[in-house]
Amino acid sequence: MFQTPTIPAPDKTIAEKARQKQNMLTKPTGSLGRLEDLSVQIAAIQHTLKPDVSRKVVVVMAGDHGVTREGVSAYPADVTPQMVHNFLQGGAAINVLSRQAGARVSVVDMGVAADFPEGSGVIDRKISHGTANMAAGPAMSRLEAEQAIKRGIEIAFQEIDRGADLIATGDMGIGNTTPSSAIASIFTGLPVAEVTGRGTGVNDAGLATKIAIIEKAIRVNQPEKSDPIDVLSKVGGFEIGGLTGLVLGAASRGVAVVIDGFISTAAALLAYELAPDIQPYLIAAHRSVEIGQRAMLEKMGLDPLLDLGMRLGEGTGAALAFHIIEASVRILNDMATFESAGVSDKE
Amino acid sequence: MFQTPTIPAPDKTIAEKARQKQNMLTKPTGSLGRLEDLSVQIAAIQHTLKPDVSRKVVVVMAGDHGVTREGVSAYPADVTPQMVHNFLQGGAAINVLSRQAGARVSVVDMGVAADFPEGSGVIDRKISHGTANMAAGPAMSRLEAEQAIKRGIEIAFQEIDRGADLIATGDMGIGNTTPSSAIASIFTGLPVAEVTGRGTGVNDAGLATKIAIIEKAIRVNQPEKSDPIDVLSKVGGFEIGGLTGLVLGAASRGVAVVIDGFISTAAALLAYELAPDIQPYLIAAHRSVEIGQRAMLEKMGLDPLLDLGMRLGEGTGAALAFHIIEASVRILNDMATFESAGVSDKE
Repeated sequence: MFQTPTIPAPDKTIAEKARQKQNMLTKPTGSLGRLEDLSVQIAAIQHTLKPDVSRKVVVVMAGDHGVTREGVSAYPADVTPQMVHNFLQGGAAINVLSRQAGARVSVVDMGVAADFPEGSGVIDRKISHGTANMAAGPAMSRLEAEQAIKRGIEIAFQEIDRGADLIATGDMGIGNTTPSSAIASIFTGLPVAEVTGRGTGVNDAGLATKIAIIEKAIRVNQPEKSDPIDVLSKVGGFEIGGLTGLVLGAASRGVAVVIDGFISTAAALLAYELAPDIQPYLIAAHRSVEIGQRAMLEKMGLDPLLDLGMRLGEGTGAALAFHIIEASVRILNDMATFESAGVSDKE
Repeated sequence: MFQTPTIPAPDKTIAEKARQKQNMLTKPTGSLGRLEDLSVQIAAIQHTLKPDVSRKVVVVMAGDHGVTREGVSAYPADVTPQMVHNFLQGGAAINVLSRQAGARVSVVDMGVAADFPEGSGVIDRKISHGTANMAAGPAMSRLEAEQAIKRGIEIAFQEIDRGADLIATGDMGIGNTTPSSAIASIFTGLPVAEVTGRGTGVNDAGLATKIAIIEKAIRVNQPEKSDPIDVLSKVGGFEIGGLTGLVLGAASRGVAVVIDGFISTAAALLAYELAPDIQPYLIAAHRSVEIGQRAMLEKMGLDPLLDLGMRLGEGTGAALAFHIIEASVRILNDMATFESAGVSDKE
């Protein structure tokens, strides 16, 4: 039986003190907007007025999807292992953006339909070689869904034990906007068509097929929304379950999590449905082009930091958001106060 | 007589090639959204498929405003020189954010109503000790307005000669949202009340006063909108004129300029009215809380990169935008292609 971890509460006293400290810095009160709020959030999470986010990691979880045989993606399923190889070689967008942000990248095989050679650098947590076709039955068994979450939690613990003070979610899995839209529809109550986008770029006919397949998967499987593990097992994915665990694990150990785009948001929503107390630990990185993300973010009360017309996944939006989060912390830590700088305060 | 510099056109052939290069990188076409567009813009500006934005500078121009005696600001005018001192000591928000972004900060006295000691580090281009009260007559003479722009152009040239490949605008001047709102109203044709915000934080009565004073300044001075130098002289500021010159100077030498918030946008709009050809060199950093910025950005066809509820000025939004711009360039330069990484392209 899967046991949802307990989530500690962030430090309200520190939050208040961090806000007071912000108001003493040489700028009009509130003039740095969301940077000020973010710094207060991180301070409360880390229980200190000198928060530190210098040890960042993007955990990219990969998995394949049986539903791709229904023609829901513009790219062949082979691209999942090919891109994992690209991550390990450092040539993908997430590698470039993580290097810029001074972040490590951990690549986890949660269920890719190919095997990686010993020494490839991938973290092997494979549940199975891809999910089953959710349009014909459950994507995975309940036990597999629980295993995926548990392995994700363990990955979070390992990263934190290695020193991570800020963890971002990343995903790779050809076809994975399809289960994410299913998850979005189930938890928000919105029709599938309103939470389904073009993923990597299907045309109009492809989009119609995708919507029909998601509707069919929900009809065939009858996922029970009050039971998030049932939803994950029936219309989810191994990387999605792993990311759900990653979010739960980080929050349970009191570490902030940066949620990337659409797939990551679906995984975070599963975690939120299991443990709403994770909410104060979440930072939504960016607004994805995928239309289904908006309602999920709203359900969690999250407002993304960036809106740059992106829809790549991999954690790329989160890597960009790292700069904003680090800026917020530096402002709190490094700015002069009115008193120290000899600047007159408001009249 | 002031001669507007000639602005060269960015390289359309390189723009096309940069777009083709983006489409070969291991990601779905267009999936990095504005990062892709930005990289194409910078490549075209720099005439190379390997653009470089590693030598960034924020030029913070400071000036005082005679109109502060009308009670338009929440802070005393003394704060302008105090904050210049803070910039020189490295304790202000712009210093913190520039250090994070790997950018230099140049602090220019365009017209502060105080003198700085020899060796303070300020770049002395003072036109006068603050403008005159624009509610009673012109803020400055036409000759002073021309001088301010010329000195700004020279500063751009100096920064470029020192190696700058990306220049950001920053401002400091207690009271300077007042002339900026006047400029916004004149060039957009919108009523003063629709382009005037609370600046550093005036209350409702203060806002009403501010609007009335701006309306009076426009009535008293009758600035001629077809003559941007007339507008600058009558309802502008020395730091605003300096920033107008900075933008013109950078564009004339083929260097991209990152426009910060409200005051910087007003200065950029003056430059745009003098030389619309600067447009392709401009990057709007962020959406300011100050309501007058939106219409000015629209007039120039600019869409800001960030929207973080900020209203500090100093170049702080631009310093944050540096990370996004650098990300765009790194993506173009450093990502693997489908071919080099052995990844299958779209079916």
